[in-house]
This record gives sequence, C-alpha cells and structure tokens, in this order.
Amino acid sequence: MAEQRRKGHQVHDHLTQGEQPPVTGAFRAGDLFQLLRDGRAWTRSQLAMITGLARSTVAGKVDPLLRSGLVVPVGDARSSGGRPATRFAFDPQARTVLAVDIGASHVRVALTDLNGKVLAEERADMPVAAGPDALLGYVVDSGKRLLAESRRPDHLAGVGIGLPGPVQHTTGRPVKPPIMPGWDGFDVVGFVRRSLPSPVLVDNDVNIMALGERAGFWPDVDNLLFVKVATGIGSGVISSGQLQRGCDGTAGDLGHVRAARGEDTVCRCGNTGCLEAIASGAAVARSLAAEGLDAASGADVVALAENGNVTAIQALRQAGRDIGEVLATCVNLLNPSMIVIGGSMAAAGEHLMAGVREVVYHRSPPLATTHLRIVLSRAGDQAATMGASHLVCQHVLSPDGIEAELASAADAG
Amino acid sequence: MAEQRRKGHQVHDHLTQGEQPPVTGAFRAGDLFQLLRDGRAWTRSQLAMITGLARSTVAGKVDPLLRSGLVVPVGDARSSGGRPATRFAFDPQARTVLAVDIGASHVRVALTDLNGKVLAEERADMPVAAGPDALLGYVVDSGKRLLAESRRPDHLAGVGIGLPGPVQHTTGRPVKPPIMPGWDGFDVVGFVRRSLPSPVLVDNDVNIMALGERAGFWPDVDNLLFVKVATGIGSGVISSGQLQRGCDGTAGDLGHVRAARGEDTVCRCGNTGCLEAIASGAAVARSLAAEGLDAASGADVVALAENGNVTAIQALRQAGRDIGEVLATCVNLLNPSMIVIGGSMAAAGEHLMAGVREVVYHRSPPLATTHLRIVLSRAGDQAATMGASHLVCQHVLSPDGIEAELASAADAG
Repeated sequence: MAEQRRKGHQVHDHLTQGEQPPVTGAFRAGDLFQLLRDGRAWTRSQLAMITGLARSTVAGKVDPLLRSGLVVPVGDARSSGGRPATRFAFDPQARTVLAVDIGASHVRVALTDLNGKVLAEERADMPVAAGPDALLGYVVDSGKRLLAESRRPDHLAGVGIGLPGPVQHTTGRPVKPPIMPGWDGFDVVGFVRRSLPSPVLVDNDVNIMALGERAGFWPDVDNLLFVKVATGIGSGVISSGQLQRGCDGTAGDLGHVRAARGEDTVCRCGNTGCLEAIASGAAVARSLAAEGLDAASGADVVALAENGNVTAIQALRQAGRDIGEVLATCVNLLNPSMIVIGGSMAAAGEHLMAGVREVVYHRSPPLATTHLRIVLSRAGDQAATMGASHLVCQHVLSPDGIEAELASAADAG
Repeated sequence: MAEQRRKGHQVHDHLTQGEQPPVTGAFRAGDLFQLLRDGRAWTRSQLAMITGLARSTVAGKVDPLLRSGLVVPVGDARSSGGRPATRFAFDPQARTVLAVDIGASHVRVALTDLNGKVLAEERADMPVAAGPDALLGYVVDSGKRLLAESRRPDHLAGVGIGLPGPVQHTTGRPVKPPIMPGWDGFDVVGFVRRSLPSPVLVDNDVNIMALGERAGFWPDVDNLLFVKVATGIGSGVISSGQLQRGCDGTAGDLGHVRAARGEDTVCRCGNTGCLEAIASGAAVARSLAAEGLDAASGADVVALAENGNVTAIQALRQAGRDIGEVLATCVNLLNPSMIVIGGSMAAAGEHLMAGVREVVYHRSPPLATTHLRIVLSRAGDQAATMGASHLVCQHVLSPDGIEAELASAADAG
C-alpha cells in the first residue's frame, strides 16, 4: 500500500514518441511455451485464438521453439477444407537433466528427461568429507558417462545438486556446513559448469527431497512439511505450493531447535538441548550403546528394532515423541495438511511414527490437525534425485528459462 | 513431476477445427490493467507494442476499463505529427474500500481509496462478545454513513474485515473462536453483503495486521513474522512475499504452542503450558495481581511499567523471554529477515522486546539470525485497517478481480 501510495496517482511522463517502452508484460515465446507444456498439441491459429495475440506474433514465437526442438510438429489438425494446419506439442525428451544426490556417505547421479523420468543412474559410496574436488569430480565424470551413453549426449538442459548442508540459494555455495569439511563457500556451480556447461542449481538436500516427494507423490498438497530423520534432522517447508527457503536459505532447520527433553545434552553445533542431539539416528545409537547394545549408527538402531529388540523400539518411539514436540509447534505455525517423515531412520517405520503422531495430535490444537496426515516417505532414497530433476525442469521450462535457452541458441547459431 | 509424468508425452487430440479451445493463457482486460496499475500512463499503441497484442485486441480491452472509470484518459502523448494519441492511467480514486478492524473490545471502520489512503474513519468501544448482529450492524451502519458522506457513495469496491479469532479462508466464517461467543460459523460475508453489495473478505485480525504492517512499512521484506501480543498471542506469517494461511487458515497460531516455562499452567484452550497462558497481557496481569499489584489487564501492566514499577518491568521482560523461546523455533523453521512485535503489549516498548531479543539471538543458529531484525510495530493500532484495505485492493485489482468487475458492469449496463 505504501509503495502504491508513494507512486500515488502521479502520472509519469518519461515516454515520448519513438522511445522504446520497457518490456514489462510482454508476451514472450517462453510464455507461449507454458500453454504447450502439459503435452497438448495446438495449431498456430488455435494459439492465436487462445492468447489474443496477432497471428504474426504467434508465428514469430513458435518458430524459435520449433528450432530449439523443445516443441515438435505432431501431425496435422483435421480440416474442413483447404490446407491442413500443423499441430505442435512439447517434447520432454528434447533435453536431459543430471540429478545429483550427495549424502553424508554416498553420491548418486541420475540422468532424466524433462518429465523427471530416470533414463540411467550411477551410485557410489563416498564420504562428503572427502571434499568438493573428489565428490564433484565423480559427479562430472559420471555425468559425462551417462550423457555419452544417452541418445542425445549434447542435449543437457541443466544439473541439479542436493548437498547435505546449508546452501546459499542465490549462489549455490555451501555456508558453514557442519559435516562437509572443505566445502564452506566452495563454488559448486562454477566447478560443475566448467565440465558440463549448462544451468547448475544447488540446494540443501532436505529442500530437494521435499520437492521430490511432493512432485512424485503429492502434487496437489500445497502445505507439506518433509522431515528427514537420519544422522541429522532437518526439514523442507512447502507452503502455498512453494518451497520456502527464508531470507538466507536456512528455513526448515529443525535439528537445532531446543527440545523439551534435551536440556543439558551438548550438540555438535555447540549449543545445548538441540533436537538433533537427542533424536537423530546418531543420538539414538549413542544412547543404546551407553546401555550396552551394539549400535554405532542409525542403521544399527533400525536393524535392532527390526529384530524386535525392545530397548531399540522404545528408544525409537521416544525419538519420535521428541521430534513430535517440535513438529507440534510447526503445525501451529504452518498448519500443513501433511507431514512426511523420510530419511534413513524412517526405515524403522511405525515405531518412530507412532511417537511423532502421539505427541503432535496431543499437543496441536484440534483445528490445526483436522486435516493433518502424518505419513512415511514414499520416494525413499529416490527423493533427492527426483527433487533435483524437478528443480531443474521447473527452472529451464519456466518462461525465463525458455527465453534464456532460445537466446543462447540464437547466439550459437 | 508425477503429474507431468502422468500426462507424459501423450498428445491429446480432442480439438477439431471450429471447436472453441479453452481460454487458458488468454490475455484479458484484467491482465492489461496490471500494466497500468502503478500509475504510469500509456497510449494504445504503446500497450500493443509492450504486450505483442494486436491493436484491435488492445482497443477492445481498454474500452471496458475506460467505461468502468478504473482507467482514465490523462492527456495526450506528444506526437511527431498527425493526431496526438490519448494516454491512459489507473485512477485509484475511482472506487472506495471499507476496511474494518473488529477487536476484542473495539470496532473501527475506515473508508479508503484503492491505494489504501484513509478518507474517513469511525470507531466505537464494543465487546466482540456482543455478538455478530450487534457488531456487524454497527459496521454496516457506519459503512453506509461513511459512504454517504464520501464523494462517490455508489463506488464501493469491497469490504475487508479482520476478526479476533480463527477464520475459514474460503468462506470467511469464524471457526470455534474462543473469545467470540455467538460467532462460530456465522455467515459474516452474507450479512454484510446484504447491506453493502460488493466483495467482502474476512480474515483473522493478526493475518490482516501482518499484511498492513508489511504493506505500509516493509513492502520489500519478503519473509516477515508479525507477532501480536495483547490479551492473547498470535502471529501472521509472510513467506516469499505471501501471507501463509496453511490448509485450514490456522497458520501462525503461536498462542497455544507449548512454552518451556509453562508446564502446569492451564490455558483457556483447555491444554496446559500454552505460551498465551504465561506471556499474554492477561497472563502477566494475573501474575502481578497475585503479587498484590493493582493489575487487571495488559493495559494496567503497561501503565505500571511506564511508571517504573520494577516488578512489572521484570514480568514484561520474562514474558518477552517466554515468547522468544517460541520465536527461536519459528526463526529456525522460517528464516525470516524481520520479526515485528505488535499488539497492545508492544506499547510496553523495550522491556518486552529486550526479553524477546535476548532469547532469540541466544537460541537460534548464527546463520539464521545474520540478517534478522526484531522491531516494534510501526503501524500500531492502524495495522488492521491498513491490512483490511490492502487485502481488498489486492483482490479487486487482480486480473480476476478486474474481470469480475467488468462482467458485473456489463450485466448492469
């Protein structure tokens, strides 16, 4: 309102005949492309009718899309006489995407089409602490192999990468990531682009998993909280259908929220009482080891629970309750209709979930939980590559992404 | 991705020559209006150049906007010869808005223009517990008076209303509002529309205050949490520049989050340990009264603190700390760049704020607080009417709002 007020009713007069007005609101080829994106086929005259654009304008915008291969002729429309008109549609196989999931101890590289369909995949066990040169070196080599073996090796649309730490959204650089020595401030985008020239998008792995889980299984759920419980704990927040990163890209950082039961436990972040210090896979393993059980990691805890060990089952349920305390606050604040629990500890299935549900439904006000479902991740260990591919597709197929693609093609030609 | 996958590469073939395609993507008069909304003036040919639309299409879309009065001719463009071309601009005074703030014990009705500028205002002391007929009866009478005295009594664009309780966003009906007996499920929109036929938008007062505070003072802050501390405690969440209501419209309900220090205190909601039960104006007054001080309400607490009463000052600071504990979790989850503290207890100024800041900066991870500012509300008791006007303007000036306006004008004519 203030902004409108400042501009007020005052009328600017800086345009004189012959001066080029700014292009705000111009309908571009990238905007026209959005009409074709769902796979339907249209003729030029149908597109002119739909948009209200002049026919010559439509033709001028369809031509570069055809040259790019993103839009292809798909046969003629039936005609009541005269020359049949050609129909056009989006071809999701016109380009490929490299979707990369870098975890604490693994890396996975998938080649997908522009619909996120996986065409080929490579995976390696490799600690993220090996540093960016080793990890991203593998990503680049693997990406080149996958592209070389693909039908269209020179048609890479972009690379999407999930990293297990905070990432500055605007630059794609990791910011003081606790489990990633050597990565702080590293120019991930620059490194990858040198070998794979294309748009490179980097984000926190939990954000990417949230995108993948929603895109793959809950595309109609607009308010979804994805919680990863693994060695650490984090979340991806989707509100009004949009991933929320906050002002520094750290939104969803639930691992270092103070937990009711945490009090004196020291966290690896230096603070005390963090949720991660009492309810992560590593924390539960530590507590079981202290009771004499053979548990060195979250995976050991899951295995013990699966074998029916009652102490492990109780510990998982308590971890679920601790997580539930924090999630109850999130439910009040965000009023999501779905909480998805993923990450390696989700493999423990209902034990952890039972604790989460118990506390969330007890602590949250009835109105906020009327439509709330708390479910296990369905995407499982594919969530991150699915999300990375989705991130790239959203970017390159957006009006601006298409415009950039057409501009670079025009430069090259 | 899944959705795209389902639709896949398959090409639909339901369109045959002569059949009318659906109007997805059509450029309407409402879309054209967006170009004019900032107050700049354009000629028809400039609009055709900017949009790529055919000149005949532009003329067909400008004409109904001119007839509606929302767009007016503002003089001719300089011409290098031939007939000078007329220039058009948005006239924010073409319509008025009624902005209504219903609080626990007052009601305020403001008449504004489409830029949110207040033209006239009425205010009355009236408990919301008097019920919807009494309260909304006053709103309607007051609105009619303000309109009758205005320059354009028949040019009402819409009514925006903030209510002190949860509101179902889609229907505008209060949902089990704790301090509003007689209002549960009441058809506020229907009641008001009968006397003031126009779009009526209803929302929770804290959501509306968040909109007003941002629109008025921080239009460029995209991640803002507005916290109202008064008789109760609530918040309005703005993420990615958008008010977040969640799936049932209850997002931001911080009053009933469990507070670290609350433990056994019974809240009016029936749960124990809620933040509101220990840190609201009413709660602090109760604790001071228990110590023998003359405090029956939050206003008394503020007055005591302003007179330098140390017990009251300490209690306010502790309330700030309790609120800060909950806000620290919000900071982790949402990563806002600004927290605004409003509501009647904010009048206590720095005492409450000091407690909030102390805990938030101690408990939140450094990365999430790098750019975080915690400030007192600037809109003060105007926040709700500013927000209600903003809500209506956003709605009626949107592409769909303009289309609806033009359609109803065409029906009437």
